[in-house]
Amino acid sequence: MQPSPLPPGFRAGSLRCGIRRNKTKDDLGLILADEAWPAHALFTTNQLVGAHVLLGREHLQRSGGRVRAVLVNSGNANCATGQEGIDDARRVCQSLAELIGCAAHEVLFLSTGVIGARLPVERILEALPDLVRGTFPQGLDDFARAIMTTDTFAKVSIAEGQGRDGAAYLVAGTAKGAGMIHPNMATMLGFLLTDAGTGKDPSELLHGIAERSFHRVTVDGDTSPNDTVILWSSARVSVPEQTFGDAVLEVSQSLCRKIASDGEGATRLITVQVRGARTEADAATIGRTIATSPLTKTAVHGLDPNWGRILSAAGRCGIPFDVARVRVWIGEADLFSDGRPHPENEAAAHQHMRDHKGVVLGVDLGEGPHEAEIWTCDYSADYVKINAEYRT
Amino acid sequence: MQPSPLPPGFRAGSLRCGIRRNKTKDDLGLILADEAWPAHALFTTNQLVGAHVLLGREHLQRSGGRVRAVLVNSGNANCATGQEGIDDARRVCQSLAELIGCAAHEVLFLSTGVIGARLPVERILEALPDLVRGTFPQGLDDFARAIMTTDTFAKVSIAEGQGRDGAAYLVAGTAKGAGMIHPNMATMLGFLLTDAGTGKDPSELLHGIAERSFHRVTVDGDTSPNDTVILWSSARVSVPEQTFGDAVLEVSQSLCRKIASDGEGATRLITVQVRGARTEADAATIGRTIATSPLTKTAVHGLDPNWGRILSAAGRCGIPFDVARVRVWIGEADLFSDGRPHPENEAAAHQHMRDHKGVVLGVDLGEGPHEAEIWTCDYSADYVKINAEYRT
Repeated sequence: MQPSPLPPGFRAGSLRCGIRRNKTKDDLGLILADEAWPAHALFTTNQLVGAHVLLGREHLQRSGGRVRAVLVNSGNANCATGQEGIDDARRVCQSLAELIGCAAHEVLFLSTGVIGARLPVERILEALPDLVRGTFPQGLDDFARAIMTTDTFAKVSIAEGQGRDGAAYLVAGTAKGAGMIHPNMATMLGFLLTDAGTGKDPSELLHGIAERSFHRVTVDGDTSPNDTVILWSSARVSVPEQTFGDAVLEVSQSLCRKIASDGEGATRLITVQVRGARTEADAATIGRTIATSPLTKTAVHGLDPNWGRILSAAGRCGIPFDVARVRVWIGEADLFSDGRPHPENEAAAHQHMRDHKGVVLGVDLGEGPHEAEIWTCDYSADYVKINAEYRT
Repeated sequence: MQPSPLPPGFRAGSLRCGIRRNKTKDDLGLILADEAWPAHALFTTNQLVGAHVLLGREHLQRSGGRVRAVLVNSGNANCATGQEGIDDARRVCQSLAELIGCAAHEVLFLSTGVIGARLPVERILEALPDLVRGTFPQGLDDFARAIMTTDTFAKVSIAEGQGRDGAAYLVAGTAKGAGMIHPNMATMLGFLLTDAGTGKDPSELLHGIAERSFHRVTVDGDTSPNDTVILWSSARVSVPEQTFGDAVLEVSQSLCRKIASDGEGATRLITVQVRGARTEADAATIGRTIATSPLTKTAVHGLDPNWGRILSAAGRCGIPFDVARVRVWIGEADLFSDGRPHPENEAAAHQHMRDHKGVVLGVDLGEGPHEAEIWTCDYSADYVKINAEYRT
């Protein structure tokens, strides 16, 4: 298989420094930029935040949003570790900055893994020189593997295009695990690297893209204290704003589908389509309610075309609609419309769920022109086992 | 065992008329009052509502809130059945009213069970004469069993006391299954019957009681289209408002704990204690978020003293607090305070979870004087199996 490309000027690499219990996988990943290029970050909205969120905000402010290096460890979230945790992270940033010759606040250091344990700082500091030396332009796949916690596969998505002057640009994305899908062991981290730029501050654009991608993927409804998405760009290729937004959104949504399909114990990627809402926010809220309903998720696992659970979940999130105008479908099969169920179509819906790894659940409210898609996965007995059997 | 008492003037009974697939249990329950006494109902807030919600509201309005009979069938929710479903329920009410000699709008007929299937009306009509004849003052336990769907035990709670003139009064409560814990097969129904009265309209009081009881129990976060709680009183014994409220609240909370401990596949009743909130509503919101977190629920199932999941769930519901002031405990064991975990107490927390069927998870926010308790149960692999294996 071809290695995944990075935009020119970025290098990446990884190594195993022994933070994770599972000692067979790399647990430290690094991306270096040739210069301190602009980066924009979205952090978790949880009241509990990992040290990297506090330190990351500080560094981005002090550097004016310019970043030379993004370092990530898996296996330890450096969260609920108090001032010591922040000091630990600061030492690592300082040491990496000295190695590559930049200011400490031009380094972002992200952590994902167990909450409440101190980082093995000495081990990380020792590993940094080898890690820096090992970065290379084809290193994205290594980085993607190093940031995995309970993910079963590395997640990389790429979009390519041509800028205003005909020059090629690249958007390379990687992400890991959505939701707190494993005991203390999952943060959604997303990285969007590109050489394209629009000449404008992409902060607002990133918010809009996250709203239509990372905020629309759910595994179990939990939000981690460490969730972070970073858009980092050399802006060497000038691209119209719409084109840029479309490319970054495409990569983000592709990563989200990979995250959802890799939920703990998942056997199906579920796409919840909500249409006919009065606003896009309404559509997204209804989609999220359906996508986090344990009853919807277990029904898909059981290949049960249970339209009643979909309709009932839609009905409980406080957004008014007229049931008589609602249509509910699974795959291509209409299961409820005109206020009536269509049991004659349940066999086709069952077949769709049985034969496809990607299951589509749809609701049209008949109230307006807006729509949204939400991605999630089914709940299996394995999900409970994996999440219950930690430490026991 | 002594039969559970009903307040004087109430009779109850049940029989099996063949609505449920499981033909070994009664599926029709009836409570009759000597006269049309005042009843107050709280119905589901779901946009999708069963026929009984629409017809119940109409009947209570037409009767001025006076009720002679409450009929309940299990096995069929009469929901998403359109105008025909309402007409079906109307026929049953009319027929029962003729049998007992009252107006049709003095009958409430509630349904719980599968969504989207028509009621077997003829079978119910045929059964009514025997059902009426079979009611008796010790019939509450029979009624409680007849309304069960996936419940594994009948839920009855009783409070007794003395009124202003020294006369004894009784509050008898019964309820069934919380949340949509089984495929299309669970409505929370609650019945509070009493001969006590305060001389005032208890509507507002019932709202407050429900907020502190039925709205604080969750199995999987789903709200059924048929959820209903009814407070029905002959008001023969005059009781001070505070006394009355306390007695009804005690019975309601006792029923809620029974409902939570009987969640699908549950092995533990979880009580989430939230203290130190700025408002009681904040405390309840945080408690509900912890109680519906699949990660909290699977951790309890695995006897894992996972304070990180509790703190993280508390942090994600949008209510601000300072993590440095938070205390988290399980049982009697403090696991997080002063911004630091206490791993030395995890063994005691594990022991509490292992040795008690009722597990206490606590969070003190240190932000104010308000508190709330929420009841739920653990998630087991059986929960997923039960909910996935329907129809397959």
